[in-house]
Amino acid sequence: MKIPGDIRVVRYVAHPDGAELRKCFSLSQMRVPEVDQGEVLVRPIYLRMDPYQRIRMRPESDFEGGPIRGGPLRLGEVEPGRGSGVIVQSGHPSFSPGDHVSGEMHWAELTAVPAAALEKLPPLRGSLRLSQSILGGPGLTAYFALHETARALAGETVVVTGAAGGVGALAIQMAKAMGCRVVGIAGGEEKCRFIMENLGADAAIDHRAGEIEAALARACPDGIDVFLDGVGGALHDAAIPLMRVRGRVVVLGAIDRYDAGNGIDLGPRNLYLIAINRLRIQGFLVGDHVADYPAALSEIRQAIDRGQLHAVDTVREGLNEAPAVFEGLFRGAAIGKLLLQVHPDPEEQPEAA
Amino acid sequence: MKIPGDIRVVRYVAHPDGAELRKCFSLSQMRVPEVDQGEVLVRPIYLRMDPYQRIRMRPESDFEGGPIRGGPLRLGEVEPGRGSGVIVQSGHPSFSPGDHVSGEMHWAELTAVPAAALEKLPPLRGSLRLSQSILGGPGLTAYFALHETARALAGETVVVTGAAGGVGALAIQMAKAMGCRVVGIAGGEEKCRFIMENLGADAAIDHRAGEIEAALARACPDGIDVFLDGVGGALHDAAIPLMRVRGRVVVLGAIDRYDAGNGIDLGPRNLYLIAINRLRIQGFLVGDHVADYPAALSEIRQAIDRGQLHAVDTVREGLNEAPAVFEGLFRGAAIGKLLLQVHPDPEEQPEAA
Repeated sequence: MKIPGDIRVVRYVAHPDGAELRKCFSLSQMRVPEVDQGEVLVRPIYLRMDPYQRIRMRPESDFEGGPIRGGPLRLGEVEPGRGSGVIVQSGHPSFSPGDHVSGEMHWAELTAVPAAALEKLPPLRGSLRLSQSILGGPGLTAYFALHETARALAGETVVVTGAAGGVGALAIQMAKAMGCRVVGIAGGEEKCRFIMENLGADAAIDHRAGEIEAALARACPDGIDVFLDGVGGALHDAAIPLMRVRGRVVVLGAIDRYDAGNGIDLGPRNLYLIAINRLRIQGFLVGDHVADYPAALSEIRQAIDRGQLHAVDTVREGLNEAPAVFEGLFRGAAIGKLLLQVHPDPEEQPEAA
Repeated sequence: MKIPGDIRVVRYVAHPDGAELRKCFSLSQMRVPEVDQGEVLVRPIYLRMDPYQRIRMRPESDFEGGPIRGGPLRLGEVEPGRGSGVIVQSGHPSFSPGDHVSGEMHWAELTAVPAAALEKLPPLRGSLRLSQSILGGPGLTAYFALHETARALAGETVVVTGAAGGVGALAIQMAKAMGCRVVGIAGGEEKCRFIMENLGADAAIDHRAGEIEAALARACPDGIDVFLDGVGGALHDAAIPLMRVRGRVVVLGAIDRYDAGNGIDLGPRNLYLIAINRLRIQGFLVGDHVADYPAALSEIRQAIDRGQLHAVDTVREGLNEAPAVFEGLFRGAAIGKLLLQVHPDPEEQPEAA
């Protein structure tokens, strides 16, 4: 591949002021970066739109609460993000031009990153895309949250927030495959229909329709054993009083609060119910399970082959669109994992006849 | 012992209206109850003033959130409560008059209870009193919360709320014996001095002095590994942002909320910090560990013999005083476990020379 002299990149140029996150970014041109020893030049194919990226957009003064991977963004830097792509030039013996990789990259047409930030993808058709959803972070998050942290059992009632989202749409399917009764909470009728018809949920609750508590109580007549929550706020408040004795809450995130001040809110306050019902509320980061990724990925692949699981993503095209697509993530604009496609996917090219 | 025809009892006669809990009770006379098959007549010596008793004083309509042992109190019933005493008459082969027992009884001069609600105390001097604090529920709660649920390690920082209270005063000593750095939070200078001088805490914070967050941050320069909390509210809010990665919060109760409406509050809300720091918040009831009581009691006794632990309680006298003493529990009127002594303790009589 011919390497151009100039490339387009998306820079982070302003801290958020309200919900119009697209205003925080600006498209610009720069020279192709030099590839130092230990680095590689990557052509991103898919960039993941991840909720945690919103946290890094807080001013540095709002980071007192805890460590964020990578820390706060500096104004002017090229937006970092996870994704998959193809090696174009390599300064590291483990990677060669043409290799397909997944890992930390940037919102750019080409990006130079340390080799340690990437892993090679298996030479399977569809890897570039699947590695960003069911065979990557979102799939592993759903898997470990259900199997390890919550230890959901057949017959138990599992409630999932963000049920049509990147992690949620996989958690719904996995919990069904585990023999659980599964209730999804999502925003809007379309998503609720999708959860029921395409993912096999036993019930779906549209949180935009109001009266969440009553709807959740009706959908969970025996209470909730496992609550997978990446949203927080009113959805979390509705679920806690329905938790059964020894119920498990897995906190995957709190997207409800990512744009609210410093995101550090009062609480937890429902300690009375936590105590008497011996609830366990467990914070979760998938990276804690890295040693078990290979075994989990193998199980997920087998479940896909059996037809028990399928990937759920929404792909939007064009680096120019990155700011608007990212903003859409927080407006619930997508079903499944939201991906931005920067370049055509070489694994999806029509094969030569 | 001669059994009188009439006895005094304390009845629960009105639901709470504000903090003057003594108004909820009334002293009255009744005939000595008949002892049915399987029951025993007990002469209570010490009655424990327990925070959970306040929860049972809520109207039935406020019990939707979860099960409370025994359910809501009925107006007019004799106040039930835990304590220790001496068997006066027995309708069950396991108990004989003169046996010293601990378990569920009532605020009364004599009370008939099912034999299953009691356990026999070992014939050791001091058992009647110690069984209500360090060698009973409070001691076992502190023990299992630290050893099993939090799994506190030597060198870790442990923060305890209600640090001069029934459970807290024991948890402070146990955590010190485990090699932890221990910080107690209590109300008032006297209690803070007691925690430092008598219990060996490394730091004490007076939550009545204000600025809890700043004081806690100063007392925990490396953050908090284990947070034992039976209070909740502002103290909980102050601790969560200081929790270290993989910190453990054990929720022993939420005394802060027991008199607030139905006690079921919004939240937990601090999900952002719970997620990124992978905190674990675990509700706790000591009864879940009943199979391990004998081993734990044996360890606690050995620690007492080594001088590492000592009982902390406050004894007030007279059944008449029960309503006022109980109210005092929620005003922080006592150091250590608050006990009401109904009759003289036969184990504390001067021995015959």
